[in-house]
Amino acid sequence: MNAPIKLYDLAAADAHIRFSPNCWRVRLALAHKGLPTETIPWRFTEKEAIAFSGQGKVPVILDGARCVTDSWAIAEYLETAYPDRPSLFNGPAGLALTRFVNEWTETVLHPAIARLILPDIHAMLHPKDQDYFKTTREAFFGCSLDDLAAAQQSHLAALRQALKPLAAALGHQPYLAGTAPAYADHIVFAALQWLRVCATYDVTGDQPALAAWMTHMLDAYDGLARAMPAAR
Amino acid sequence: MNAPIKLYDLAAADAHIRFSPNCWRVRLALAHKGLPTETIPWRFTEKEAIAFSGQGKVPVILDGARCVTDSWAIAEYLETAYPDRPSLFNGPAGLALTRFVNEWTETVLHPAIARLILPDIHAMLHPKDQDYFKTTREAFFGCSLDDLAAAQQSHLAALRQALKPLAAALGHQPYLAGTAPAYADHIVFAALQWLRVCATYDVTGDQPALAAWMTHMLDAYDGLARAMPAAR
Repeated sequence: MNAPIKLYDLAAADAHIRFSPNCWRVRLALAHKGLPTETIPWRFTEKEAIAFSGQGKVPVILDGARCVTDSWAIAEYLETAYPDRPSLFNGPAGLALTRFVNEWTETVLHPAIARLILPDIHAMLHPKDQDYFKTTREAFFGCSLDDLAAAQQSHLAALRQALKPLAAALGHQPYLAGTAPAYADHIVFAALQWLRVCATYDVTGDQPALAAWMTHMLDAYDGLARAMPAAR
Repeated sequence: MNAPIKLYDLAAADAHIRFSPNCWRVRLALAHKGLPTETIPWRFTEKEAIAFSGQGKVPVILDGARCVTDSWAIAEYLETAYPDRPSLFNGPAGLALTRFVNEWTETVLHPAIARLILPDIHAMLHPKDQDYFKTTREAFFGCSLDDLAAAQQSHLAALRQALKPLAAALGHQPYLAGTAPAYADHIVFAALQWLRVCATYDVTGDQPALAAWMTHMLDAYDGLARAMPAAR
């Protein structure tokens, strides 16, 4: 039995609430590999707690003495270090195409969700994180959190539009990776888990294939994702 | 040696100009499989010429007596019928993830290119096709071709935005499918070949990884795609 892998995991004011999409994809990947995991709650401004990693963002994992940062690098590390466990990519072709899913998620899906829920995230953060979060996100999106909140309905419509290729693909097969989930599903589901934990918008009500996949992903790995409460 | 596979291929007024993205992906897939191909120029209104297929759109292929329609179904047919030739999907994981690339192309990339170039396409069609094309496309997009032409600059900006995940993925690896092209590359490249043949917009000038991939795809299969002249 391996010692648990430690995952520094972004936390809300309530340390039990974990919402980071980049951390959730790693948690699902660790579960997929069947690796015992210990999460360590971490907040945006606790830079010194992860200074050993040589940078200031989570996810960070510690596998014994080995430190790995960046979700994609962590997934590749786990695939290489644990080749006999269930595969995250199912071979080189799967890995290459999962890269496109990763880039689509980071350049399209994450910004679409962020525009919608940044105000909700701000409200749930530990007070010591709120100024940092507001300043960095307003600079990134070039507008204030209040501006984002005021345009909520158009951001929700844009998010529904952005989800079209996902819903269409899931109309043909149970998972992005085929008949069983793999890292491509972890990446995309983690974004929707972020939405689910931070806000109450419904984006699957009129998309039955997407809704079915969400249910299966929430149930996967002994209900790991479902155990995190949804926003109310 | 097999008898050539016949491909009904959408043609402009000049029958040598072939621009359909759904036909180009099939031509590239046939070349990838090393299958001799005979293309038959076909125009939008020549419904009776492909009535034998039970529907009214190209691509349609005839492999001996076997008729297959719909680009995705054709790719799956070729993979199954010619398993010993180079693979289009590189296994079940590759096939499932290529489905996402296909749906992204159809729901995001194709509409973004169409909004930009429908007026150009209309101008290059055979006169007998022009009314059909104008009527069906204006109904689909809910505006006139003149309206589309007037908003050209915003459509170009939207297309550049839509290409971001593609450019980002190609910044990490030479092809979407990894170290060599496969059907995922055929699907996406065929959309940019459509743009190249119909109009002169530059979308790769500030995207070196995307530009390098375009060059490699134009050169692939003995320069098959490059042999088709670009719009001037």
